[in-house]
Amino acid sequence: MTDVLGGDTTLADLPLRADLRGRSPYGAPQLDVAVRLNTNENPYPPPPELVRDVTEAVRQVAAGLHRYPDRDAAELRADLAAYLTGATGVTVSAANVWAANGSNEVLQQILQAFGGPGRSALGFEPSYSMHPILSAGTRTDWVPAPRRADFSLDGPAAARAIAEKQPDVVFVTSPNNPTGQSVGLDDLRAVLDAAPGVVVVDEAYVEFSSRTSAIALIAEHPAKLIVSRTMSKAFAFAGGRLGYLAAAPAVIEALLLVRLPYHLSAPTQAAARAALRHAEATLGSVKDLVDERGRVVEALRRLGFTPVDSDANFVLFGPFAEADRAWRRFLDRGVLIRDVGIPGHLRVTVGTPEENDAFLAAAEDAVAEIAAQTEESPQ
Amino acid sequence: MTDVLGGDTTLADLPLRADLRGRSPYGAPQLDVAVRLNTNENPYPPPPELVRDVTEAVRQVAAGLHRYPDRDAAELRADLAAYLTGATGVTVSAANVWAANGSNEVLQQILQAFGGPGRSALGFEPSYSMHPILSAGTRTDWVPAPRRADFSLDGPAAARAIAEKQPDVVFVTSPNNPTGQSVGLDDLRAVLDAAPGVVVVDEAYVEFSSRTSAIALIAEHPAKLIVSRTMSKAFAFAGGRLGYLAAAPAVIEALLLVRLPYHLSAPTQAAARAALRHAEATLGSVKDLVDERGRVVEALRRLGFTPVDSDANFVLFGPFAEADRAWRRFLDRGVLIRDVGIPGHLRVTVGTPEENDAFLAAAEDAVAEIAAQTEESPQ
Repeated sequence: MTDVLGGDTTLADLPLRADLRGRSPYGAPQLDVAVRLNTNENPYPPPPELVRDVTEAVRQVAAGLHRYPDRDAAELRADLAAYLTGATGVTVSAANVWAANGSNEVLQQILQAFGGPGRSALGFEPSYSMHPILSAGTRTDWVPAPRRADFSLDGPAAARAIAEKQPDVVFVTSPNNPTGQSVGLDDLRAVLDAAPGVVVVDEAYVEFSSRTSAIALIAEHPAKLIVSRTMSKAFAFAGGRLGYLAAAPAVIEALLLVRLPYHLSAPTQAAARAALRHAEATLGSVKDLVDERGRVVEALRRLGFTPVDSDANFVLFGPFAEADRAWRRFLDRGVLIRDVGIPGHLRVTVGTPEENDAFLAAAEDAVAEIAAQTEESPQ
Repeated sequence: MTDVLGGDTTLADLPLRADLRGRSPYGAPQLDVAVRLNTNENPYPPPPELVRDVTEAVRQVAAGLHRYPDRDAAELRADLAAYLTGATGVTVSAANVWAANGSNEVLQQILQAFGGPGRSALGFEPSYSMHPILSAGTRTDWVPAPRRADFSLDGPAAARAIAEKQPDVVFVTSPNNPTGQSVGLDDLRAVLDAAPGVVVVDEAYVEFSSRTSAIALIAEHPAKLIVSRTMSKAFAFAGGRLGYLAAAPAVIEALLLVRLPYHLSAPTQAAARAALRHAEATLGSVKDLVDERGRVVEALRRLGFTPVDSDANFVLFGPFAEADRAWRRFLDRGVLIRDVGIPGHLRVTVGTPEENDAFLAAAEDAVAEIAAQTEESPQ
């Protein structure tokens, strides 16, 4: 017996869909640890002027909170379009942009419109684990396809897998999470040429990469290509939940058919616009993080690890005999990193220099401990 | 040719799901009209102290926007539970509460967990038009069932329809939108006893009703009953997008399997908590709106209309020979109301006394015009 209302009823008592039984909720542990390098956030807090601007923007909309927000988020989409135009050199209009509560909601809407029951989505694993989860949530069949042994994408092999499987939706993550490599335009063209349906290039980490954005290819493939992005990473706006995409205007028309009306709150729209006004300052941290990434990779190599070359703000590294035990070892030293389910590997977000020092010290301890236990270094 | 990137591509060129072709996006027209009585918002703006509190709450979280928000919204759910406990007299815990970006997202999650392909959802029409749209969006078969001719719910007939159709999800809207009537506990018990799956009582307008909340029945039917609510109506927080529900904790465990991680932004959580601290002041407007509802209903009757008795902050009224032409007549007089698709009827939100005066003046004009055109008054 429990005092909680309905507390004696268990999940097994509910008429839950059979395909959800036994599953666990998605999500990295949210632990109160000194050094959190597990969810690829930008470690630098918003500058005071951004905080002031966001606060003032919310104050202005707060007086009208009794009214529904702009259902089409027209001003925010125009601001995002202006940012993309500046960042990519491709002229992007508000009609090319769609936004939602995080790129997860953007991707879910894409799957609702172009995937769903009787359709399939293909992705190159290991990649962002939400792609198959969102596919399951929209009852889209998930078709995994392989990467090279070094986790990079093999364009011609990818095109062959697509030609064989004929998926309705293809996901290409560039840079790829959790492995870090970007995909070049030639490989993307091979994927686009082969794809019978839509191709979603997930550019959540693109600001950390020196590669050309896939947005350059929308003009060539307007009926196929969708480029998704987020303000959660380089933009240091994970708490604000703002994902977006660029595509032909017809794609946005399609998404309007499946989006929940008024999905983006007035404070979210206002806060995101304020954050965008400070894009230059926020993205100023990108260079520092890229430099630190180089330092972390080099230090890991010196310690005997094999880090994967990364174009993002995280590094996948190994080998570990047991990644889950190694993850716990880092946590015991106050450093929270991520066990992404790739055997023998862990992923660390690039943090501030101090956080990276703490991580590298823990990594050195881990090496010593592993060496003592196994009498061999983790080559 | 167009200058917009990909602007020559049309919806017909895209591999859109067949069941979405030809559909129109959901949503009332968002028009810049002096008197907006079309989306059942609370017409009274948030008081200055609420605006200050929301602004201050967002300022506090803005400094941490680079980090993901609390994925489980623990504090907000505790605050909502405390509000529900005070409002209903039923002891509701944080474990009984779930929240999302508007009740639409709450309802979508319920359908993802308990509906979906191969399953069905039943509702009593006319009712909230998003119920069938959300069912379609989650590929849940929609089963419409009738109401009485006066739009009220016939409990025993509802139970028979459920027994016959065996739906996995049943929607009962109380008070019903767009007709206004509430459903009593005895009728709800009949529905719950008959239902083989879950029953969602959508209480978006419950604060305007004098009936007992369905939350009183969760203890009797913990494996079946889900009561959804919103802060968009009486709470005057439509712009903040906060929907929630009360149910047994196991229901929330089920929803964790389908929710998008980090779906509720840090500003949304903070702003909603601030708004809840002012619940008493905000809900103080409910009595005034209920009084105005009585005045509007009476005045419509005097004009020769037949308003439906309402327990909510809106009134369905008619008859009109052509509801769409009548809707346009109101709009031409600067009063935006809603054509909800019920032949011969329109729905008006109860506004401020001044807004209601403007609406009633337009209604009087409409009567005169209709009389002049048809040489008979609207029965």
